[in-house]
Amino acid sequence: MERNPSKQMAGNESDYTSEIEGRERVMVEDAFRNTEVPSWKNQITVRAIVTSFILSIVFNFIVCKLNLTTGVIPSLNVAAGLLGFAILKGYTSILSQFGLMKLPFTRQENTVIQTCVVASSGIAFSSGTASYLLGMSGKIAAQAEEGNIPINIKKLSVGWMMGFLFVVSFVGLFSIVPLRKMMILKYKLTYPSGTATAYLINSFHTPKGAKLAKRQVAVLFKSFCFSFSFALFQWFFAAADGCGFASFPTFGLQAYEKRFYFDFSSTYVGVGMICPFMVNISLLLGAIISWGVMWPLIEARKGDWYSASLSATSLHGIQGYRVFTAIAMMLGDGLYHVFFMLFQTFYSLAQQKLSHDSGDSSLDATDYDAKRRIEHFTKDQIPNWVAMLGYGILAVISIIAVPLIFHQLKWYHVLVAYAIAPVLAFCNAYGCGLTDWSLASNYGKFSIIIFSSWVGLDNGGVIAGLASCGVMMSIVSTASDLMQDFKTGYLTLASPRSMFFSQVCGTAMGCFLSPLVFWFFFKAYNVGDPEGSYPAPYGLMYRGIALLGVEGVSSLPRNCLTLAICFFVAAIVINIIREFLQKVDTRYRTYRFIPSPMCMAIPFYLGAYFAIDMCVGSLILFLWQRRNKIKASEFAPAVASGLICGESLWSVPAAILALAGVKAPLCMKFLSSSTNSKVDAFLGA
Amino acid sequence: MERNPSKQMAGNESDYTSEIEGRERVMVEDAFRNTEVPSWKNQITVRAIVTSFILSIVFNFIVCKLNLTTGVIPSLNVAAGLLGFAILKGYTSILSQFGLMKLPFTRQENTVIQTCVVASSGIAFSSGTASYLLGMSGKIAAQAEEGNIPINIKKLSVGWMMGFLFVVSFVGLFSIVPLRKMMILKYKLTYPSGTATAYLINSFHTPKGAKLAKRQVAVLFKSFCFSFSFALFQWFFAAADGCGFASFPTFGLQAYEKRFYFDFSSTYVGVGMICPFMVNISLLLGAIISWGVMWPLIEARKGDWYSASLSATSLHGIQGYRVFTAIAMMLGDGLYHVFFMLFQTFYSLAQQKLSHDSGDSSLDATDYDAKRRIEHFTKDQIPNWVAMLGYGILAVISIIAVPLIFHQLKWYHVLVAYAIAPVLAFCNAYGCGLTDWSLASNYGKFSIIIFSSWVGLDNGGVIAGLASCGVMMSIVSTASDLMQDFKTGYLTLASPRSMFFSQVCGTAMGCFLSPLVFWFFFKAYNVGDPEGSYPAPYGLMYRGIALLGVEGVSSLPRNCLTLAICFFVAAIVINIIREFLQKVDTRYRTYRFIPSPMCMAIPFYLGAYFAIDMCVGSLILFLWQRRNKIKASEFAPAVASGLICGESLWSVPAAILALAGVKAPLCMKFLSSSTNSKVDAFLGA
Repeated sequence: MERNPSKQMAGNESDYTSEIEGRERVMVEDAFRNTEVPSWKNQITVRAIVTSFILSIVFNFIVCKLNLTTGVIPSLNVAAGLLGFAILKGYTSILSQFGLMKLPFTRQENTVIQTCVVASSGIAFSSGTASYLLGMSGKIAAQAEEGNIPINIKKLSVGWMMGFLFVVSFVGLFSIVPLRKMMILKYKLTYPSGTATAYLINSFHTPKGAKLAKRQVAVLFKSFCFSFSFALFQWFFAAADGCGFASFPTFGLQAYEKRFYFDFSSTYVGVGMICPFMVNISLLLGAIISWGVMWPLIEARKGDWYSASLSATSLHGIQGYRVFTAIAMMLGDGLYHVFFMLFQTFYSLAQQKLSHDSGDSSLDATDYDAKRRIEHFTKDQIPNWVAMLGYGILAVISIIAVPLIFHQLKWYHVLVAYAIAPVLAFCNAYGCGLTDWSLASNYGKFSIIIFSSWVGLDNGGVIAGLASCGVMMSIVSTASDLMQDFKTGYLTLASPRSMFFSQVCGTAMGCFLSPLVFWFFFKAYNVGDPEGSYPAPYGLMYRGIALLGVEGVSSLPRNCLTLAICFFVAAIVINIIREFLQKVDTRYRTYRFIPSPMCMAIPFYLGAYFAIDMCVGSLILFLWQRRNKIKASEFAPAVASGLICGESLWSVPAAILALAGVKAPLCMKFLSSSTNSKVDAFLGA
Repeated sequence: MERNPSKQMAGNESDYTSEIEGRERVMVEDAFRNTEVPSWKNQITVRAIVTSFILSIVFNFIVCKLNLTTGVIPSLNVAAGLLGFAILKGYTSILSQFGLMKLPFTRQENTVIQTCVVASSGIAFSSGTASYLLGMSGKIAAQAEEGNIPINIKKLSVGWMMGFLFVVSFVGLFSIVPLRKMMILKYKLTYPSGTATAYLINSFHTPKGAKLAKRQVAVLFKSFCFSFSFALFQWFFAAADGCGFASFPTFGLQAYEKRFYFDFSSTYVGVGMICPFMVNISLLLGAIISWGVMWPLIEARKGDWYSASLSATSLHGIQGYRVFTAIAMMLGDGLYHVFFMLFQTFYSLAQQKLSHDSGDSSLDATDYDAKRRIEHFTKDQIPNWVAMLGYGILAVISIIAVPLIFHQLKWYHVLVAYAIAPVLAFCNAYGCGLTDWSLASNYGKFSIIIFSSWVGLDNGGVIAGLASCGVMMSIVSTASDLMQDFKTGYLTLASPRSMFFSQVCGTAMGCFLSPLVFWFFFKAYNVGDPEGSYPAPYGLMYRGIALLGVEGVSSLPRNCLTLAICFFVAAIVINIIREFLQKVDTRYRTYRFIPSPMCMAIPFYLGAYFAIDMCVGSLILFLWQRRNKIKASEFAPAVASGLICGESLWSVPAAILALAGVKAPLCMKFLSSSTNSKVDAFLGA
């Protein structure tokens, strides 16, 4: 869903943890009064880094798979926290049984693992292997047809992708470091995901919490095993495309042709369990509007609105309507949020200035919790000059290196990007602190349009735009990530320095793993085929945005522009209505029932199947909550994480089998009654 | 499984209720001290009869479907008790809300419903619509080839079937009535199923029990809904034979060809949950021995042991080995049990005679429970002369009528049958009281052999034998049923008269409904096709026994006789080992792990698929018990009953659709990878 994965499902996350918070808020630090806080160097242990690396591999596979299938990525914070806890707790328990344990397992260490894993899987998302980088490839270019010329295509290879990521991904870390005290201590921004994670980690490390955590881990393991074995079982029946559970026409063949079916993906059922109900309903609503109503109506005008001789994947045909209305809706939603966030940021800053006292009062905290937290947060400093120097040096390297990788992008383009990036990074980090939404991909999209049109089609504007998206997104995304982690560290008494270094570690892991994992899938499967198992919807979308930038709207099929404008406006209007209701109707809180335009747009391209999976997840959660609300809130995230991890991990052996050319032995095929008679006659003969 | 359905799963049943019994034994009647017992006429209310009729329809469908698929029929007593309670409780609650209730709902009334429903579904089993009557039809005769001459075939029709049932089914009721006081009061036979049912009904009608019963009903309803909707869902994907979930090659195509697969039948998963673990394991073991080892070995000798040109269903080919080894094993098991029971009966009677005092001591009971029970049991008498007169009159009618229906059977044949029947009926009722096994179908099988060989092939010995089986089975089966019900009535203070009349009512309902329901399936489906959905295995088996009787063993394929003798002996040996272990090894009780030969024989003919379903049921129950033993024992029977009832009831609309010629819209087909490529090429062209 096009937002930073670690912050993605914030609403739900904070709903979930608000309960824990409520129960433990009274005296968090009191329980830890006698627990020593290790120095920042001792917070980053070798075992923590090794654990992080193992989990990074797991999460890179998961995020990459999700990116390549639908692009909907839930928050994996809870899973990362749980698994990190489980691995290190298991390891230290074994050691202590043999009397070999020297260092106890601390919550600061747990926070380091968490931060590192989230940073690395954050790169898996912001590296754009499934969006802007994939959009450069010839395969996606062929689908878009327009702009399919050598200068606007770059052949993917692991080497330059990894290089590019290493060059652009670290800059963001330095851009925002000097502001951490202002944001956390002075403005007291909430950062819901960061707070939630911190409470989770705190609760794991209090004696009672450890018990619950162990039970959660057990549940996670069970659902992991189920999900893995079910995926294995499914594999046997999928000998070819259109075979197996993934092509199960649950609601009949006609609905299947309109991509309405339940595809038995435990991953997306799990994702649906983590996502807020409204996200899933928005997805389903979008699918019904598009595949249920609009596309059939437009297809009825085939030959009139667009040429009937076009291939199914051509952007000049029905696919064009799908892609450009989706882009329009996403852009509308993004634009609204960016402007709203800028407005909120400046309004909030202005208010801070008006009430001078608030800034200081936060520092002379009265309660024990705040005192200890502030003490630890201000102990280890990262000097401002280090941050600025770091930013400067990395930016210079980037300005030199990026044009070497993408000769379509000149040094001054990159310079401009780095000049405006810190401002956007601040806006994003501030907004994220308020709302928990990271809008990194939106800033990326705008930068595509700006740089694409600046460079122009014949000078490789498509590639330039997509590359600039990478530069911009990396800075903006890591900045808000880092600030979330500072908040987590603040609440778990982890040092800002250890947070910073574990983020650096995680980023390095991500830059290294993410292209490799992507390459694994890219070689094993036909990634980017809109009808295949790995449609990677954002590849074509991002290229579509770049095409809009270089070509304007003249190349769209008939009435497509009108429709796109309608959806663009609709997205803004829906957001305004939501905002309005939130202000006005505080009684029934009807704003909760306004769908999200961003979510509605995704199925425009993909169809309803994953939305149905996710709604099934919602349904399970809903029934579970009705049965036992406390148990559901304690274990649903664990079950969901297990479901996601299990099937996603099966994709590793599955991809290896595919690479080795091993085919499944069986095909579970779905035929209409009449076709079946024909086939039976054919097979009998 | 070829025993009287209501006593079928007795072992499990009594395991289940022994717990309830244990908890409530202390003071059963004390709780009812202030509850008035209505007079016997008021126990049989109109609402009870109407409820019984409704449930009879339901249970006739269930039993008929089970008969026609695999012949494994679990105890439906719990379901009958629960549903009877639910319907009447619901009805009386509604009435009392409007202030219209005159009569309270008593446990005696509940017992009447229970008795009536069990009697009627007992007829559905003993009517032999899927065994001896079906074995007379031309379709089954064609499969057996031998004896396929007009005099040994009788075309099925509802008319004569219903007539036959009415003539033979009531005799049994009178044959045993005079002995009820001796069996229940003097010999204090346990009748585990009857006792279990009584405790269930008693527990429903105590205030605490009613709450549990309500929750059980709710669980039953939920699993019913699940099972029904899943069956409905499955229907859509089964456009033709070999399509759909019922043909799911869960363990691969090779295993599927050997009939090893899970066919997603919630009915048999439910059946597996009710049956004792050892029954399910025996079934699986039998399937592995036969389909896994023996048949492949024999098929490898095709052309040597039997002609390669034979049709797959010919008894002279591989099918002959399947049918006759199964028959041999069943006969061996049956013979052992009959002789063992005769021995036990006479031994027990002799012991009773030796200790004269025991007879009287039982009547002067010391505790309150026994006092009240004896008082009510001896209050309403059924005079002996009524019973004897009834038996005489009905026997005369039968001696006149049966030869009119089956001209192959002469009046003296029937007379002989009625002369020896009361003795066998007594043996069966007595043995059933001791062991809970009704051996009615075994007596029936022996009577097939005797009368078939007496009449001879050319005089219609096959039909004569099968008809005599009906005569004999009806008497023997209803006799033990009635005695079970007397026991239930004794424990719930229901009058023997009301028990007798409700049994008469139920028998009449069964005689009326059973042929109709069978006819419904018979017209809608290709019943008796060994490869189809309704193989009705016992049709061919019973005819096979009759053929053995008239033809001897000369017509069997090569080595089949040797094999059959081996299995016959093996069945007896296994039983002796079990009996021996039960006596000797009281410590580890290893006898519990000796499989049942009867159960092992069924999959010889059918294959493993239903055994796998049932083992899945066992597995679910096992995991549930490990998790929460009390909850499992309280709710597993309800869940299982719901699963059985739901899918079985779906067979009604499914059969109507089949009659109307409506085909499912889809075919879920399973093809090997290579076949799939061919089909894809064919469909693409």
